[in-house]
Amino acid sequence: MHQNRSIGIGILGLGVIGSQVAQALFDNNRIERLSLQVGSPMILRQAADTNVGKLQSSGLPNHLLTTDAADVLNNPEVDIVVELIGGMEPSINFISAAISQGKHVVTANKELMAKKGPELIEMAEQHKVQLMYEASVGGGIPIIRPLKKDLLANHITHISAVINGTTNYIVSKMSKEGLDFNSALKQAQASGFAESDPSNDIDGFDSAYKLAIISSLAFHTRVNLQDVYREGIKGLVSQDFRYAEELGYAIKLLAIAHFKDTLSLRVHPTLVPHNHLLAKTDGVFNAIEIEGDLIGRVLFHGQGAGPFPTSSAVIGDIMEIANEMMMRKNSVKPVSFSRTLQISSMQDLTTSYYARLIVADRPGVLANMTTILSDLGISIASIIQKSADPSAKSVEIVITTHPAQEKTVQQAFGNMEGIEMVKEIGSLIRIEN
Amino acid sequence: MHQNRSIGIGILGLGVIGSQVAQALFDNNRIERLSLQVGSPMILRQAADTNVGKLQSSGLPNHLLTTDAADVLNNPEVDIVVELIGGMEPSINFISAAISQGKHVVTANKELMAKKGPELIEMAEQHKVQLMYEASVGGGIPIIRPLKKDLLANHITHISAVINGTTNYIVSKMSKEGLDFNSALKQAQASGFAESDPSNDIDGFDSAYKLAIISSLAFHTRVNLQDVYREGIKGLVSQDFRYAEELGYAIKLLAIAHFKDTLSLRVHPTLVPHNHLLAKTDGVFNAIEIEGDLIGRVLFHGQGAGPFPTSSAVIGDIMEIANEMMMRKNSVKPVSFSRTLQISSMQDLTTSYYARLIVADRPGVLANMTTILSDLGISIASIIQKSADPSAKSVEIVITTHPAQEKTVQQAFGNMEGIEMVKEIGSLIRIEN
Repeated sequence: MHQNRSIGIGILGLGVIGSQVAQALFDNNRIERLSLQVGSPMILRQAADTNVGKLQSSGLPNHLLTTDAADVLNNPEVDIVVELIGGMEPSINFISAAISQGKHVVTANKELMAKKGPELIEMAEQHKVQLMYEASVGGGIPIIRPLKKDLLANHITHISAVINGTTNYIVSKMSKEGLDFNSALKQAQASGFAESDPSNDIDGFDSAYKLAIISSLAFHTRVNLQDVYREGIKGLVSQDFRYAEELGYAIKLLAIAHFKDTLSLRVHPTLVPHNHLLAKTDGVFNAIEIEGDLIGRVLFHGQGAGPFPTSSAVIGDIMEIANEMMMRKNSVKPVSFSRTLQISSMQDLTTSYYARLIVADRPGVLANMTTILSDLGISIASIIQKSADPSAKSVEIVITTHPAQEKTVQQAFGNMEGIEMVKEIGSLIRIEN
Repeated sequence: MHQNRSIGIGILGLGVIGSQVAQALFDNNRIERLSLQVGSPMILRQAADTNVGKLQSSGLPNHLLTTDAADVLNNPEVDIVVELIGGMEPSINFISAAISQGKHVVTANKELMAKKGPELIEMAEQHKVQLMYEASVGGGIPIIRPLKKDLLANHITHISAVINGTTNYIVSKMSKEGLDFNSALKQAQASGFAESDPSNDIDGFDSAYKLAIISSLAFHTRVNLQDVYREGIKGLVSQDFRYAEELGYAIKLLAIAHFKDTLSLRVHPTLVPHNHLLAKTDGVFNAIEIEGDLIGRVLFHGQGAGPFPTSSAVIGDIMEIANEMMMRKNSVKPVSFSRTLQISSMQDLTTSYYARLIVADRPGVLANMTTILSDLGISIASIIQKSADPSAKSVEIVITTHPAQEKTVQQAFGNMEGIEMVKEIGSLIRIEN
């Protein structure tokens, strides 16, 4: 019998993102867990790419593969079409066709959403389907849904974002290693973080697309790309980073939206004060800060690109659509806390430790303590003598350990407490690396 | 005629949070915008508090006020009950009663959700109503919904969080000002950041509640509070902060969940490496870092408490319930991009600027440049001579300005370019403060 309650997924485009999404949806453990959460089987029904090589290297079984997107769009078992081709053409036609046929759509396509988002969303509303695009901004970082839901109460006044991983990789290299722009770009290209034609990133187009998408949600307005002022990073030279550093700033390519009476939208290199978290957003990481009248400033930080984070966002969208499909059927959601997990005992924790002790200021003390630790197999990372108190004939010692087991460490410092030359175990604090 | 499509809200508890939520929902501009987003009027129908003084100081009109929670629970015009009383009793009875009567519930109650969350959620599912609790963890920071939706694709392995503003205020004071614990606690109490009986915060109970709530969502399991190891901050002394600093660490009260075969849950003071964003989460700010197999590490940072951020989260939940109510009625959502905003011209931007110039190394140059700037009303924040190039008889100058208008600044540096002694405008970069 046909599983009429299953939720079918079709993928368009099996590039690096598409093939990772396909693999994640073909992973039995994951798909079982997701199906359990939705309360209905989630099934990858079909995947299309015009490139036969990509079909073959996708790892999917042959019967799921096609070179013709129309097969996916016309497949009655596909409820959700996932567009991962990118660019304007043919993506816009495929998405329009999917919507017209009453299929839900998930896309990671920032250029398309920046240029045609409001029109496509309106079309989806008319056809009573969902169009979701969390992956179009910030990779896996949740930002579209927070703007659409969590932050709705706020009058939003400001957005500042490090929103393009390629340029942030380049400016981080220039800042930390004193490289000039061309060397940093070449390194980014060699490491796969920049394309051979890097203009889309380094001239700020990609950041402008993403700023247009999040600004339209934050300010409930249609943002035209022409309204976004755009200046790339090509003009930056290494001494700017050095001088900015001396003045207390990092240089970042920021995407900024500011709303006070009028809306200001701009992408340009910016000096950001060192104590600001955006200044500490390095390498391929992205961060988006939103300011609203109730929430104050809230910041979202994570990997802004790459197949794994992007598939996290794509599948999050698929799951939300699946949940809404189930809700419309008025089905009862299964209890979400059904897993029974074994709890670890604190005694079994393995971590590094910091200890501060007051010990007698006389020969042999350090040797004695290190022996106690090494006898229990605890490896010392550092041992430093701090201030001495001559009147009390004592010194303060700070010990840090390599990872060791809680129960062994407790035993070791318990043993030390029993020794006459140890006056006090001042602190024993765990270290998280 | 009775507006049968309106969405009615009732509030239980008019303390600092409740009265702020009430005020935000009584603000005409906000409620109009929210109603437009939902596509149906949102109306605050009633608010209850046993304390007459709180009713009077709430600023709400008398006909909305009652001292009896049952009035709100039995009000047929109330669709969503917002519980902002806190603690176990009588909140649990009120929430249960609301659910039994088919009303949706929004709560900020962390103790209740940590101790009875799964039971209440199951009860809500049975009655086909929603129980939302975004405000119970991290104030306004979106964390419940990201775990329930955005991050669902991930196998989550680790959570580290600075999740209690009071203790973070105290440890930040101890770290930055060298205060001892008791002085820092007194300052926190004097500033309203700690309660007169501070045990709930400083002994780690509050962090443990929040860790239980987010861990149950992240790992899809019921977390018992007894399974959370808990150690507070009372034992920390100021020299621990100094020594940790020297070793490259901050000390934070972290809430940690780690899942590998077994689940480890713990709240204790922790040394965190300086380059980690959690180490830079200071004062009353909170940050929650989640690690998953697809997304890598993603971090959420913002104000973890206070009436404004908390009401952002509470109203976000109300809005999601309202949207779902509309969706179930299959009503068409209005287009969300309906606002027409005027776009600011880049020429009108006001910000500070950094400029790097190569100028002739001879007397009068600086005077000439400062005159050009001051003639146009641009105020100089700093002017520093950097490296000189004796062979070219030139020096590099870095100028930073106070906020000035883009068009004036462009004009000033345009004027400079025309001067013979200015060899090059190397960079002109905007500063964001």
